[in-house]
Amino acid sequence: MNTIDLNSDVGESFGNYKLGLDEAVIPLITSANIACGFHAGDPSVMRKTVSLAKQHGVALGAHPGFPDLMGFGRRNMEASLNEIKDYIAYQVGALHAFAAMEGLKLQHVKPHGALYNMAVKNSAIWEAVAEVLAGMDRDLILVVLAGSNRKELKSIGSRFGIRIACEFFADRAYNPDGSLVSRREPGAVLHDQELAGRRVLKLVKEGKLVAVDGTEIELAAETICVHGDNPTAVMLTKKIRETLLVSGVEVKPMGTFI
Amino acid sequence: MNTIDLNSDVGESFGNYKLGLDEAVIPLITSANIACGFHAGDPSVMRKTVSLAKQHGVALGAHPGFPDLMGFGRRNMEASLNEIKDYIAYQVGALHAFAAMEGLKLQHVKPHGALYNMAVKNSAIWEAVAEVLAGMDRDLILVVLAGSNRKELKSIGSRFGIRIACEFFADRAYNPDGSLVSRREPGAVLHDQELAGRRVLKLVKEGKLVAVDGTEIELAAETICVHGDNPTAVMLTKKIRETLLVSGVEVKPMGTFI
Amino acid sequence: MNTIDLNSDVGESFGNYKLGLDEAVIPLITSANIACGFHAGDPSVMRKTVSLAKQHGVALGAHPGFPDLMGFGRRNMEASLNEIKDYIAYQVGALHAFAAMEGLKLQHVKPHGALYNMAVKNSAIWEAVAEVLAGMDRDLILVVLAGSNRKELKSIGSRFGIRIACEFFADRAYNPDGSLVSRREPGAVLHDQELAGRRVLKLVKEGKLVAVDGTEIELAAETICVHGDNPTAVMLTKKIRETLLVSGVEVKPMGTFI
Amino acid sequence: MNTIDLNSDVGESFGNYKLGLDEAVIPLITSANIACGFHAGDPSVMRKTVSLAKQHGVALGAHPGFPDLMGFGRRNMEASLNEIKDYIAYQVGALHAFAAMEGLKLQHVKPHGALYNMAVKNSAIWEAVAEVLAGMDRDLILVVLAGSNRKELKSIGSRFGIRIACEFFADRAYNPDGSLVSRREPGAVLHDQELAGRRVLKLVKEGKLVAVDGTEIELAAETICVHGDNPTAVMLTKKIRETLLVSGVEVKPMGTFI
Repeated sequence: MNTIDLNSDVGESFGNYKLGLDEAVIPLITSANIACGFHAGDPSVMRKTVSLAKQHGVALGAHPGFPDLMGFGRRNMEASLNEIKDYIAYQVGALHAFAAMEGLKLQHVKPHGALYNMAVKNSAIWEAVAEVLAGMDRDLILVVLAGSNRKELKSIGSRFGIRIACEFFADRAYNPDGSLVSRREPGAVLHDQELAGRRVLKLVKEGKLVAVDGTEIELAAETICVHGDNPTAVMLTKKIRETLLVSGVEVKPMGTFI
Repeated sequence: MNTIDLNSDVGESFGNYKLGLDEAVIPLITSANIACGFHAGDPSVMRKTVSLAKQHGVALGAHPGFPDLMGFGRRNMEASLNEIKDYIAYQVGALHAFAAMEGLKLQHVKPHGALYNMAVKNSAIWEAVAEVLAGMDRDLILVVLAGSNRKELKSIGSRFGIRIACEFFADRAYNPDGSLVSRREPGAVLHDQELAGRRVLKLVKEGKLVAVDGTEIELAAETICVHGDNPTAVMLTKKIRETLLVSGVEVKPMGTFI
Repeated sequence: MNTIDLNSDVGESFGNYKLGLDEAVIPLITSANIACGFHAGDPSVMRKTVSLAKQHGVALGAHPGFPDLMGFGRRNMEASLNEIKDYIAYQVGALHAFAAMEGLKLQHVKPHGALYNMAVKNSAIWEAVAEVLAGMDRDLILVVLAGSNRKELKSIGSRFGIRIACEFFADRAYNPDGSLVSRREPGAVLHDQELAGRRVLKLVKEGKLVAVDGTEIELAAETICVHGDNPTAVMLTKKIRETLLVSGVEVKPMGTFI
Repeated sequence: MNTIDLNSDVGESFGNYKLGLDEAVIPLITSANIACGFHAGDPSVMRKTVSLAKQHGVALGAHPGFPDLMGFGRRNMEASLNEIKDYIAYQVGALHAFAAMEGLKLQHVKPHGALYNMAVKNSAIWEAVAEVLAGMDRDLILVVLAGSNRKELKSIGSRFGIRIACEFFADRAYNPDGSLVSRREPGAVLHDQELAGRRVLKLVKEGKLVAVDGTEIELAAETICVHGDNPTAVMLTKKIRETLLVSGVEVKPMGTFI
């Protein structure tokens, strides 16, 4: 493979509250995960973020989360699968409106925070989300965590008739089983930009990754999650993008090649 | 004219809170104004209400309001036109998702409560809503208050390329200028079912109405607002429907004849 | 013991949404658990509920929950102990204001829904709540679930310098270990009013209870939770109150005898 | 007069959203207006802000606003006087809890944003707030906008048995009638630090102010509103504080000298 997508969580401001360097990171990515008003974002922020992404030719995606603005959607909630489906549909629909007003369609959906983490541990949640996307628009891609269960994840997509994109976290260490090293462990987050660049390149070119214990593992991903919360994160994103480009990797929205 | 639409505000429950006799009123109407989560309704209520409306062949409409659940969207808020546009787009989009999952499209949009009342006094708000609907989907009909300014209201529609439906309130007294008698005035709300039925029939058949002072005025409407909040309201709705049907009036969703 | 308190969750309406037959149940109880705006209740409902309780000489208590109006505070949330403490303080303080305006003090605090259930399984939450109450006002009583761990629960109170009241659920079956039969099991909820009355009387007079499997167990409680959500619940509450009174049991606010 | 209070709006962060340089501005002021969760602030932010103010010996005040987080409490809402009273009581009570846990009492209450502006135009709102404060705790001081109607404002206090503090805005131009120059007018906000310092000093020492048209007017204030939203605002606050101190003015919490 010689093509990859770069995605980032954006549109996380709310009312008078500004969060994230969207103006800096959006020109560097190819897919935008836009918050939809439950854990972050508000209708005006959504409109502006859609417009900014459009300006830079960045594909639009929804980033739905739990209805927990106070906890930024980062706290597990014992919502039922039906509730989760309804929350996804609501938020994806809301973002769809702003895309439609710009003459655009949504490309993908990536659950946020606790909802994403709960789905990683319980694939019934991935299935629930896939069912909603299939019901709304079969062109919508579901973004999930890349891992050793790639086959299973992809099969959820075929079962519901939608595409699945596996994502890799550029700045996170991985266990030898292909899972993320918990943030509570030392070394969970990478700070060395050169290393992060090389790692991403190896992943894209070879589908391989050096795990936290030094073993080389196989990991396939169609999109790489990068960040824009702070200047250092933006610099890392820039570094990754440049490393990919100078190595002849094409950086394009996932919808164009999955 | 021999055709009319009956619309009602439904889907106003929220979480553990039940409001309105949706099961009773939905079979009686032809267009459902479904709350979208800002002043009432939640994602699960929206899904169930869309499904209930579908079962009864009732056309789907969004009933967006101000983000004021505590005040049920009934309190004026000094939101800017841009904020209002963003609130409308967000809520209509959210409801669109549940319609799409049932293989349906939204027929119309009717602003709720304070937002509706503010638009009646300031047509820049009607224009803002019309602009959003035109941007999202030109098949969406905007429901406004019928009145002596019918030409102006219809011209907003032609300017933005969407259809406008004027609505008449079955249980409200009207001033000789075609405006609603304020709820603070005595006699603002009609309680006589026979009278209400006759009034609606006259409006549909002749485009005429006897105002609160006894003068006969002209008033044209494509849809009649009825209620389902309580058993008496449902009985009035039933009466109106029957009066129309026995008199040979066709009762159909507005989208089929406007 | 010949004295008992009757408590009920009240003030659960919100804005335009009415919930619970507060006018019917408040005259029957001695302690009111008043919702505080996070999972139910709003400032105006709180004021009115405090006033209604005052009229009937019912002691005031706070019923704080998770910030989850959509889920009525019934969904577990992975909030930290610090967040829980802050939510408790905020809500108890808010209710305190309405009590103060009526010249009254709060008597007790009983966590609501998921927060209560999580505390039953993890006493670190009871301790967190106790710490907050001790910090705010040492006269505040913490209401917890009566069970075989009574000593431990009471010791939390002595450690923080506040009183603990154990509550018994009048309409719920109990396991032989003194825990509640899960609502998912058959027979979890009692519907026989006579039986419920006799059971409560036995508990108050003898400190004993017949568990779901027929074994007699010891269980001590200072307050009995009754309900006012629907007419049947109110009738059960009335039955329990009468059974207690005709048997010479004094029914008084917990603060007067704990 | 040779004593003045410096107040600032703080505690406006919410969940993951940071707003304002509280650590920098709190050491410079004597009275903190702490947001209470409706337009800004959350329970955890309130606890931390109370603690920070305590560390610096800054008196605690509540800064209640409309329930409009999305609009930061800056949009007029047609809430009734009863609703406003209930919102004030709720929020002041909530903050009271965090003060109590630190062994402190609240000193003052200053309505926020649209609520403040609406009160400036309609003194029935000042009266409603005063009534609530008197009902909760007669030691609470109500902060209002200084102006030519000082006598009237003070008489609201005497009628309800509470103290009134008039506040002056250090960075705002005034009309010759003692009202604020609207932010829509040029020159409404002062940027010259030297000038702002001299102006504050003249106000404190002489009770006089040069209005925007050059005329000298009388204006009496017990507290000066300064800001900490950005580094420039903090520098202005520092400048004002220094100007006052080197000129021998005592800078103390309003509660100690009103």
